[in-house]
Amino acid sequence: MFPINTWYCVERASEISTQPFERIICNEPIVFFQTAKSGSMVALENRCPHRQAPLSMGKVVGEEIMCSYHGWVINSGGNCTYVPHQKSTSRNAKVKSYPFVEKWGFAWVWIGNPLKSDITLIPDMPWLVAKDRSAVLSRFYVKANYQLMADNLLDVSHSDFLHASSFGSQAGKKGETENVQQEMEITSDNVAVRCIRTLREVQLSPVAAAWGGFTRVVTRIHRQKWTPPNSINIELIMENEENKITINHDHIMTPETEKTCHYLFGFTRDYNIKKGYPTDKDVRREQETIIGTEDIPMVEAQQLNKTRFDDPQDVPGQADKFLIAVHKRIEEITG
Amino acid sequence: MFPINTWYCVERASEISTQPFERIICNEPIVFFQTAKSGSMVALENRCPHRQAPLSMGKVVGEEIMCSYHGWVINSGGNCTYVPHQKSTSRNAKVKSYPFVEKWGFAWVWIGNPLKSDITLIPDMPWLVAKDRSAVLSRFYVKANYQLMADNLLDVSHSDFLHASSFGSQAGKKGETENVQQEMEITSDNVAVRCIRTLREVQLSPVAAAWGGFTRVVTRIHRQKWTPPNSINIELIMENEENKITINHDHIMTPETEKTCHYLFGFTRDYNIKKGYPTDKDVRREQETIIGTEDIPMVEAQQLNKTRFDDPQDVPGQADKFLIAVHKRIEEITG
Amino acid sequence: MFPINTWYCVERASEISTQPFERIICNEPIVFFQTAKSGSMVALENRCPHRQAPLSMGKVVGEEIMCSYHGWVINSGGNCTYVPHQKSTSRNAKVKSYPFVEKWGFAWVWIGNPLKSDITLIPDMPWLVAKDRSAVLSRFYVKANYQLMADNLLDVSHSDFLHASSFGSQAGKKGETENVQQEMEITSDNVAVRCIRTLREVQLSPVAAAWGGFTRVVTRIHRQKWTPPNSINIELIMENEENKITINHDHIMTPETEKTCHYLFGFTRDYNIKKGYPTDKDVRREQETIIGTEDIPMVEAQQLNKTRFDDPQDVPGQADKFLIAVHKRIEEITG
Repeated sequence: MFPINTWYCVERASEISTQPFERIICNEPIVFFQTAKSGSMVALENRCPHRQAPLSMGKVVGEEIMCSYHGWVINSGGNCTYVPHQKSTSRNAKVKSYPFVEKWGFAWVWIGNPLKSDITLIPDMPWLVAKDRSAVLSRFYVKANYQLMADNLLDVSHSDFLHASSFGSQAGKKGETENVQQEMEITSDNVAVRCIRTLREVQLSPVAAAWGGFTRVVTRIHRQKWTPPNSINIELIMENEENKITINHDHIMTPETEKTCHYLFGFTRDYNIKKGYPTDKDVRREQETIIGTEDIPMVEAQQLNKTRFDDPQDVPGQADKFLIAVHKRIEEITG
Repeated sequence: MFPINTWYCVERASEISTQPFERIICNEPIVFFQTAKSGSMVALENRCPHRQAPLSMGKVVGEEIMCSYHGWVINSGGNCTYVPHQKSTSRNAKVKSYPFVEKWGFAWVWIGNPLKSDITLIPDMPWLVAKDRSAVLSRFYVKANYQLMADNLLDVSHSDFLHASSFGSQAGKKGETENVQQEMEITSDNVAVRCIRTLREVQLSPVAAAWGGFTRVVTRIHRQKWTPPNSINIELIMENEENKITINHDHIMTPETEKTCHYLFGFTRDYNIKKGYPTDKDVRREQETIIGTEDIPMVEAQQLNKTRFDDPQDVPGQADKFLIAVHKRIEEITG
Repeated sequence: MFPINTWYCVERASEISTQPFERIICNEPIVFFQTAKSGSMVALENRCPHRQAPLSMGKVVGEEIMCSYHGWVINSGGNCTYVPHQKSTSRNAKVKSYPFVEKWGFAWVWIGNPLKSDITLIPDMPWLVAKDRSAVLSRFYVKANYQLMADNLLDVSHSDFLHASSFGSQAGKKGETENVQQEMEITSDNVAVRCIRTLREVQLSPVAAAWGGFTRVVTRIHRQKWTPPNSINIELIMENEENKITINHDHIMTPETEKTCHYLFGFTRDYNIKKGYPTDKDVRREQETIIGTEDIPMVEAQQLNKTRFDDPQDVPGQADKFLIAVHKRIEEITG
């Protein structure tokens, strides 16, 4: 159902510890933890081979995890190394283990063939760890297919409507004297699909204006990059004669099931890093509020409607060029 | 599954406004609203043709509704008239629209062929708007097939048992000196099926006695009229040498799904309209309590049991004559 | 799916009264009550033959139950004896009745052929009513197949891990200087399968030590008896040169559905019955806490995992000898 020979983002790296936790990725329940001595990152099928108790209810002991039901001990390769009151263990007592690594402040798991896993395949997001930038990372749970959540980001024309009362501008509303044309340019290479969308003379919302201290209209440029399986990096530039600010939005979608997904998000800015508004705390509060109360309810409502109306054909607009290019690429990849 | 060339009651007309809301009727999710300028009543398939966002999350602008996701605008005929940043729209950008009208204080939708819709097909309920009467309207949501809720009203012999502690009388209890016979007379014409059920020397409950100031036994007459698809109008007369009072109960069942329905209810009385007990507020409180805590839990329990026991054959009693006549008529209509 | 010509434990006998209640046993919704005059125990299919209303919403009147919807009256044999406003009733107006008896302080129902029911087939648990012992009975609802809950008791090696922070000992933990061997002996006859498991030099937890006033290591012996369909009686003896105490644990599992069950439990002790710790109240609090927060969450997690992982093959350990013998017997019985 999902591409599996690929890295899926599980969590912010800062959340990985010796406290095991479960996450379902591509329908597979997986337990994640760090070992107690070396701090190695471990991902295992979330079941004890003995009688299917979830290892996520267990306890990390040294470099291994002990099942809390009958005390069987499983190592980071998924093999049982100890059974209480026994001198040896069975070779069959084993579960699947997964490559699990840290990069760009996120933790990534490889679901498919471990031999094909290659850490360089994780999309580049150097701004997330750049010293002259400030990154805020969040995680969301979404009751929608991960592609629907991705589509939200592939059509940023939603920002002036869905986010009208938060950071959206007034551009594009019916009844305006002029229906401002958007400029869009789509390109792609072997890996990524890219889009540049430009809107000129945009009247910013008070929130977005405050970010850059803008008092007058700006040119707003979205440079977007889609990378498989479903990462979307957006460089958002707002500039006029007063100021120029740059934000990197990273949106990384990981399927849980066909109708639910995990959504990892980064917001990296180059303005007001040391002082003034917004602080990292402001950014987190604003972004988690916007995504949690505007984007996610809409995407979940779309998912519900697609199910209820038996998946009607979408009718694209001109702003959907990027989305269509990405969908075409996904079809090519998945055959 | 359901008759569709017919009017279904959606809401009390007083609840229709420029705030769009969704209701599922016969498995179809529909958005309902009034337009901002002319106050026209509009019912549309509850999805934007662009990417299936529910229009009920949108906003009424003038005579149209704007989708809150990407700002597409849909008119009362279901056609998209505007896409932001575009000079024109696609002909394919349209959704289904439904006839939607107000009558007798209720709002009614026609699910089937709009050309067949005819407002005169809505059953007559003139008492609901009569100047010398007082009508109180309510709406309930029921987790049962709409026919099960209708059957509740087609066998009013339940009132002395299910409502024993509210307005029921003592008539019919096992162990009484005399098991009072009920008189029932069933008639029907091309449209309606009717029943008159008479019980004599009925000892009223304190609540019902208070309505008419009765201190002695009464004759209680139910005149019932069933009209397709599933409206039941009950004229309830209680009289003795002290007083005579008349209540019109209107019960209108609208299918949501096979196992859920909307239940619209009217209670119109000819007594104590200007002063004394009950006020309209008393009526609402009493009726919503009785229906909500006595009728609906029982009907939902029946639905659950029919599912769990794989729909056993009912065993009718003599009081079921009216119900049987109506079920027969429904079979004739639906072929 | 389940053996039906057998007694299933429904409740503690003390809970049976004239207040009817429903329990689903082997997928069959059944209403249970005691009659008002003779105090007879009655179990009926939980539906009125008239229109499928649950009889558990009805009211016991004398030796019968009256449906609360339209007042039909059903006797203890499941036959309708009265319909309001009618002179007679229909022969078809009847529902299934079940043998339902009290024994050992529990109430038991027979789902299959009533002619085969025989009260002597209920497993012996005389300690539950012995005068020199004190029994505390509990009931739990478990979202797991009843065999999974039984398996919990068939492998008591879980007690030192799952109950590590309550009454478990330290025996068997990885990294101990010596991995103490357990001694297990399995026997069986025509009816029961039995197991004796002995662990020597066990360091008790503070809770278990307090029960017998132990300050030093003990020998811990579990004598277990499994009886069909799924009762497990455990005699637990802890002794050393200081004291010897005996506890009888009775675990009786009754299927609700394939994935849910009722779990009846007895804890009968021979120590500190009249004074000191634990009182019956202490026992109830301790046991309901341990079972409710340690055993049941684990068994429910197993059930969930078996469903999610599509029922993987278990890998048994040496402690599973008893469990394997019982599973084999169950296969023989059910063919």
